[in-house]
Amino acid sequence: MKILISNDDGISSKGIQYLAKYMKEIGDVIVVAPISEQSAIGHAITMKIPLRINEYFRDGEKFGYAIDGTPADCIKIGITKILKSKPDLVISGINNGSNTAINIIYSGTVSAAREAAIMDVPAISISVTNHSAVNYDYAGKVAQMLAKKVYENGLPQDTVLNVNVPDLPEEQIKGIVITRQGKSKWDDTYEERIDPYGKNYFWLTGNLMEVDDKLDIDQFAIKNSYVSITPIHFDLTDYKTLDIIKSWNIEKHF
Amino acid sequence: MKILISNDDGISSKGIQYLAKYMKEIGDVIVVAPISEQSAIGHAITMKIPLRINEYFRDGEKFGYAIDGTPADCIKIGITKILKSKPDLVISGINNGSNTAINIIYSGTVSAAREAAIMDVPAISISVTNHSAVNYDYAGKVAQMLAKKVYENGLPQDTVLNVNVPDLPEEQIKGIVITRQGKSKWDDTYEERIDPYGKNYFWLTGNLMEVDDKLDIDQFAIKNSYVSITPIHFDLTDYKTLDIIKSWNIEKHF
Repeated sequence: MKILISNDDGISSKGIQYLAKYMKEIGDVIVVAPISEQSAIGHAITMKIPLRINEYFRDGEKFGYAIDGTPADCIKIGITKILKSKPDLVISGINNGSNTAINIIYSGTVSAAREAAIMDVPAISISVTNHSAVNYDYAGKVAQMLAKKVYENGLPQDTVLNVNVPDLPEEQIKGIVITRQGKSKWDDTYEERIDPYGKNYFWLTGNLMEVDDKLDIDQFAIKNSYVSITPIHFDLTDYKTLDIIKSWNIEKHF
Repeated sequence: MKILISNDDGISSKGIQYLAKYMKEIGDVIVVAPISEQSAIGHAITMKIPLRINEYFRDGEKFGYAIDGTPADCIKIGITKILKSKPDLVISGINNGSNTAINIIYSGTVSAAREAAIMDVPAISISVTNHSAVNYDYAGKVAQMLAKKVYENGLPQDTVLNVNVPDLPEEQIKGIVITRQGKSKWDDTYEERIDPYGKNYFWLTGNLMEVDDKLDIDQFAIKNSYVSITPIHFDLTDYKTLDIIKSWNIEKHF
């Protein structure tokens, strides 16, 4: 099994080391990841400036390729210019911090996996639920289990598995559930400060307003010490409102 | 009607001037847009550096506020720090170049509207189908018609209207259709060049592989000189595959 690994925390992050370690036990691994942290970069791609491919070494050994771009760039250039063929699986992570509910929209980690699915490669994104995560090992084991499942069963076309693992020792994990995306979102505020030259600047802050209350919803599952696995796709059509908009009678043929 | 306008082409672009002109005919307009072009930035938000709010003048008059951030940032800071209350409508555009099919995923224009929907504000994104568009007026009229419709009827919560208008004189437009997101996508390639110092660099290029063939699909509609209006949302759950993943029997309660 040929496995392409990426992330949004950058190639030097701890999570991608754990992911590479667990994937190397079951396949041939190639790492293509951003040089620098790209959290909350969403599905940005780089078009107005060119990219460069840099070999990246760790402990004197070649670990992979560092790209001065976004997570989605890493998948595009990784498949077309570095691998030059499609891998059997793309897996993105292990991200520091959960990518559940509204955070799926903002996540570079998820977008890397989604870019792979757009390129018809089965893909998984995986995160641990803590920005200062310490328990990467269980997430690595879950990633390994799912990689094998995807290799055996395939994934429906255009589907990504978005996985979130509580940052807990394995024995405190209560289970694994298949979930849907929650509706919890941020109450944004900007903290206003004044720079040494007297000008205002604004830092984004906010709290996640938790509204999810069922175990088959990603955000509630992780809060209750379960691993959540949500199949996501990239057809954004809101099918349930098509008829409502049609009822406005704005369709015309001139 | 209080209308917040943004885009991803930047506050100095032509499209946002046309949009402001047509919206000022029906409401109180405030413009909050990126200082510089942010195409293909997706739903990126700025968390690791602070933002600044700059008054922006055009022809000696205040046109709006320029933000050194992404389109989604403009909506967040526009609503929380500039308006300090929710507008009746957010409208993003008029974008140079279509945002149909897979391009919806990459688009900053669409993400600005989507960020508004996340904040429970009715939202529209609007684009003309040409990166060197010349026919903004008809798109402006469509935006005005839809803004009035949304003000009258409301929009279902979590729904954005993503509108694409052919870059044609009004008399050549064949109609308006309610559509779903197409499946056309890019065959990515990277053009390799060598810099003056002998190092390789890579430019993203590619062609849109058009596979959509029905008038109720956004990409086919615009190719056939129709305005397309697609309701989109931000629940990415792939509901049709939930049962497939459940059939893998990986759910567990420890």
